[in-house]
Amino acid sequence: MSVTFAQGFRAAGVAAGISAVEGKKDVALVVNDGPLDAAAGVFTFNRFCAAPVRWSRKAVADGRIKAVILNSGGANACTGEAGYAQSEATAKTVADLIGAKAGDVAVCSTGLIGELLPLDNVLAGAKAAHAALADDDQAGADASHAIMTTDTKPKTVRLEGAGYRIGGMVKGSGMIAPQLATMLCVITTDAVVSAGQLQAALLAGVDTSFNRIDVDGCMSTNDTVLLLASGASGVEPDPDEFNRLVADACASLARQIIGDGEGASHDIRISVTGATSEEAALACGRAVAASNLLKCAISGNDPNWGRIVSSLGTVPADVAPYDPDKVTVDVNGVRICENGGAGRDRSEVDMTPREVHIDIDLNAGDAQATVWTDDLTHEYVHINADYES
Amino acid sequence: MSVTFAQGFRAAGVAAGISAVEGKKDVALVVNDGPLDAAAGVFTFNRFCAAPVRWSRKAVADGRIKAVILNSGGANACTGEAGYAQSEATAKTVADLIGAKAGDVAVCSTGLIGELLPLDNVLAGAKAAHAALADDDQAGADASHAIMTTDTKPKTVRLEGAGYRIGGMVKGSGMIAPQLATMLCVITTDAVVSAGQLQAALLAGVDTSFNRIDVDGCMSTNDTVLLLASGASGVEPDPDEFNRLVADACASLARQIIGDGEGASHDIRISVTGATSEEAALACGRAVAASNLLKCAISGNDPNWGRIVSSLGTVPADVAPYDPDKVTVDVNGVRICENGGAGRDRSEVDMTPREVHIDIDLNAGDAQATVWTDDLTHEYVHINADYES
Repeated sequence: MSVTFAQGFRAAGVAAGISAVEGKKDVALVVNDGPLDAAAGVFTFNRFCAAPVRWSRKAVADGRIKAVILNSGGANACTGEAGYAQSEATAKTVADLIGAKAGDVAVCSTGLIGELLPLDNVLAGAKAAHAALADDDQAGADASHAIMTTDTKPKTVRLEGAGYRIGGMVKGSGMIAPQLATMLCVITTDAVVSAGQLQAALLAGVDTSFNRIDVDGCMSTNDTVLLLASGASGVEPDPDEFNRLVADACASLARQIIGDGEGASHDIRISVTGATSEEAALACGRAVAASNLLKCAISGNDPNWGRIVSSLGTVPADVAPYDPDKVTVDVNGVRICENGGAGRDRSEVDMTPREVHIDIDLNAGDAQATVWTDDLTHEYVHINADYES
Repeated sequence: MSVTFAQGFRAAGVAAGISAVEGKKDVALVVNDGPLDAAAGVFTFNRFCAAPVRWSRKAVADGRIKAVILNSGGANACTGEAGYAQSEATAKTVADLIGAKAGDVAVCSTGLIGELLPLDNVLAGAKAAHAALADDDQAGADASHAIMTTDTKPKTVRLEGAGYRIGGMVKGSGMIAPQLATMLCVITTDAVVSAGQLQAALLAGVDTSFNRIDVDGCMSTNDTVLLLASGASGVEPDPDEFNRLVADACASLARQIIGDGEGASHDIRISVTGATSEEAALACGRAVAASNLLKCAISGNDPNWGRIVSSLGTVPADVAPYDPDKVTVDVNGVRICENGGAGRDRSEVDMTPREVHIDIDLNAGDAQATVWTDDLTHEYVHINADYES
């Protein structure tokens, strides 16, 4: 379903021989048939950003995108001017097929860093995908499959507003750190909205979703989130509802990334309350989410609160003022740390659910924030010691 | 050998039933017989610092320490006033045994966070250790064994200056992050030096050693480094030589921690050259050292330079100015990344040595820094999913 749930969009996913996995779909195409072609994008902060990121950042700068071409099987990152030329050639090929300009086409790539793409395969894939374009559920599903790498399942969303729809797809399960932990994401809507509205909604939505998840603390070179509006519903949405739905779509997709984190056996929700500011709560949540020791303990079903508070304790006092002697920690509803010391026995905590809730109260103020992470397992090491992309 | 290599020091290590491992030595005592009792200390920045850290920080504030009592089997962290009273009682017991004041005795603990110590065992261990005190090699070795937890081997150092000696021991293999990645360390010298000289030498030594290693990015609640001087050699050292030897002792012990990092199969040296400042080089080195993805790749003998540069790319430009297109990366002497892109084929890199050298040239200036880390293995996850201390 995914990106074709919104009216005015066609999509396709085809196998073009880019991925090392024989027969895997590896090229996706999303085309906005309008009448609008409004678009917004946010991109990785990584200074070694990939060629397609540099291309797409420029393409979306005018608030207009008519199509997005995405490939798995190669990131086209750290490939210099030759890599940039590949992104440009790919955009040009798609533009010719749909009767647009290259600057109206965004390009996204994911896979191994440091190698050029097999360009002939990419361009042939673009043509095959164009020929396969459709606006039905299967076409959306095919596109969401074509962008997968270590993902074990496609990740999609669909939401309905008052007379309009939002659909989306994302790929990502490793190299996921706060600050746009997405890898690649395309969200579509048939609402009638301007590029400015899209950009504001997307920034706010990303801030509370993709910027608050952390699989492994590693920031990608290729992170891209695009939001495209066709206006095909003819409905001008209530701005508050629209912003909320975009945020919900981002949150759903981010949650699905955590649910499919590389090798993960537990999804961990870390809620920090009682902070003096949202920034303080977020800094504390991120510090806990980044702890390899805690993530290993959770994979061993050990609600090790010592590793929670020792991570909290690394956040400087000027960033998050609180008194360590007043901190409480609940894991799955059991208060195992009270006033900065031992509370109820940790053997009381039921660690059988996949989802683990860590609730930290700093008892210093009224602000709160929630971040998500995964546990650290043998399987994560296995995937990343042996995977070459 | 370790702490008893310097004249004027006696030590012991005994089993007191604190550790969960039957019969393991778990109490160490180091006594400075003088004539001097000058001392310096540096401690964890963790806001949830343990009771013994709070005690010892106060004890060393006057620049004088006559004895250090250390235990494994329990960290006495997040134990509130009751935990502080345990540290105080332990210091008092040792002080009575050696005819000193409680404030002349430093206390160090390591093990599980959040539980009080079995105080009777600790005090009985202190008495047994006092009865066993000796200035020979075996006594120093016993002490270095008694502070081990997940360490697979004792870590000690001995160095000779012009007429004086320096000895030391450290424990630590997990919960090791920059900013005093030591867990517990005691260094002794028989040189005639003031507390002020000791503190200056120790701060400088720690800055280029324990502050530049990273096993798992996790900062301990109990990190303590103590430097004690007996003056028993009667030699006033050349200040430059003395500072250099203290730095060498710290560097040797820090290197041994990396060599025994939990589950590690490779020790990784990351050298960053061509930076605009030492701080910039250090920020880049630490970012690379913190990458779980890179650490997994190295455990799989994959010199994945894409994961090196993607980590470099997360350092903000105002912290470390450089041009990504001018960066080179050598792994074990093979330049696999040139001008920010692919260089020689990574299959040329010999990954069989335990030690892996990653040499990054930012080509932006003349400053450099080196940090050390370990690879991330199945065994690290196993140890930290199943270990409860």
